[in-house]
Amino acid sequence: MEILVIGIGAGDPDHLTLQAVRAIERTDVFFVLDKGEVKQDLVELRTEILRRHATDPKVVVGRDPDRDRTSTAYVESVDDWRRRRADVCADLIGRELGEDQVGAFLVWGDPSLYDSTLAILDDLQDRTDLRFTVEVVPGISSVSALAAKHRIGLNQVGKPIQVTTGRRLAQSWPDGVDDVVVMLDAQTAFSGHTDQDADIFWGAYLGTPDELLVAGKLSEVAAEIEQVRAEARERKGWIMDTYLLRRNHR
Amino acid sequence: MEILVIGIGAGDPDHLTLQAVRAIERTDVFFVLDKGEVKQDLVELRTEILRRHATDPKVVVGRDPDRDRTSTAYVESVDDWRRRRADVCADLIGRELGEDQVGAFLVWGDPSLYDSTLAILDDLQDRTDLRFTVEVVPGISSVSALAAKHRIGLNQVGKPIQVTTGRRLAQSWPDGVDDVVVMLDAQTAFSGHTDQDADIFWGAYLGTPDELLVAGKLSEVAAEIEQVRAEARERKGWIMDTYLLRRNHR
Ligand SMILES: C[S@@+](CC[C@H](N)C(=O)[O-])C[C@H]1O[C@@H](n2cnc3c(N)ncnc32)[C@H](O)[C@@H]1O
Ligand SMILES: C[S@@+](CC[C@H](N)C(=O)[O-])C[C@H]1O[C@@H](n2cnc3c(N)ncnc32)[C@H](O)[C@@H]1O
Repeated sequence: MEILVIGIGAGDPDHLTLQAVRAIERTDVFFVLDKGEVKQDLVELRTEILRRHATDPKVVVGRDPDRDRTSTAYVESVDDWRRRRADVCADLIGRELGEDQVGAFLVWGDPSLYDSTLAILDDLQDRTDLRFTVEVVPGISSVSALAAKHRIGLNQVGKPIQVTTGRRLAQSWPDGVDDVVVMLDAQTAFSGHTDQDADIFWGAYLGTPDELLVAGKLSEVAAEIEQVRAEARERKGWIMDTYLLRRNHR
Repeated sequence: MEILVIGIGAGDPDHLTLQAVRAIERTDVFFVLDKGEVKQDLVELRTEILRRHATDPKVVVGRDPDRDRTSTAYVESVDDWRRRRADVCADLIGRELGEDQVGAFLVWGDPSLYDSTLAILDDLQDRTDLRFTVEVVPGISSVSALAAKHRIGLNQVGKPIQVTTGRRLAQSWPDGVDDVVVMLDAQTAFSGHTDQDADIFWGAYLGTPDELLVAGKLSEVAAEIEQVRAEARERKGWIMDTYLLRRNHR
């Protein structure tokens, strides 16, 4: 058995690489974990990609286990949730994928960034009798999409970049870096840093028809982004946003 | 005038996205800065991509100005070199691109990571009379390619990642992060950190037929990587490598 983990880009069906197209073409079974109704657009992107590039695809859907978001022990709750996801995947793969078939997971953005699919497949090989090879097809991440839409580089000449989470940025500005990309921010953590002399390059629903972009001096546009974000979230029921904070030389 | 800055991926012609293919198709003039003989393979990838996706492309080549690599003032020497590159580009664009035409630069990897094309185009609009719109097409970076080939995520659950240069890693392990991606490392800076309890995932010529991968405990494989790297560099005359250092929980 072979499992392909295919990065499909961050929202635009044309983010797909030629390598991903070929991987989709040779897939027998597509595995999908259903996240419920919430992010319907994400499901639609997957469907659209299969419609364009797969002939008569077999898609099997597993029920994504609920995650305990109330837990304060973030890492443990993620680990536990991952284990339950792995169990769901083991069940799907064992039941639906033939010995000489190719299965695939279509992963949002790039599989290397804040995605659990690879960890789940590792866990699965550790804990079950399922044996398969894994091939990963890189994808356009939301970070690359953000930079492209703002027409900026992520780094300043010779300087480092940190990619981090909203949860961490809410604690403090990371040490030793002036350029910080923030993902998974449910709490608009940028607003806690308006005392910094920094610029923000913000984007939501990147690559989709709902794309929103705001850029400017952080202290001047933070309130505007909060408002645009709240309205969009209200309107669509969910939001996916990411941003670069660029602190000016001191 | 319109200028497209197109990320072409990190070595594999199939890294190209559908968006990049369409961008190449609508380009009238491709601009190339010739870096001399050294990285002939890079030139060949560009040629191969144009052969596959452009019909009868017009390619204009400018002579890349020499960079003063002896200077100790790194940033200034880069800035100065950029300005001279911008002058070469201004000349090419002004001479070769018609008012209602589309020009393009094909950029290695993703245009947002340690690439100067966007800064050059900004500089050009600031300092000359040339007026054009810029569109950026994101590409698969060598970082995504590295992670895919090693089948790993870049981040640990909920944790940050830093992307930095060999020059900086040679000074010290960056503050506040256990996961560090290193680019532009001419000095095998990883060897200065073999006292750390860390793993390394190293890759050279990623996505090309010469691809090399080594992974393992840093203290155990550092010498091997040094050797593999030196041999490959000797054989091909140049090397492009990148790696993830992952420090274990303390
Ligand atoms: C679970 S992570 C997955 C990231 C994905 N693997 C990638 O490469 O972009 C989800 C986070 O990615 C970011 N994100 C993903 N898609 C996005 C989009 N289209 N627009 C803005 N942010 C996006 C958001 O920060 C979101 O919280
Ligand atoms: C000037 S930077 C350009 C990076 C490029 N924009 C990207 O997204 O990968 C060049 C550095 O990228 C890395 N790199 C680029 N292509 C690579 C490849 N095929 N294999 C390994 N490293 C690569 C190396 O660290 C190299 O020193």
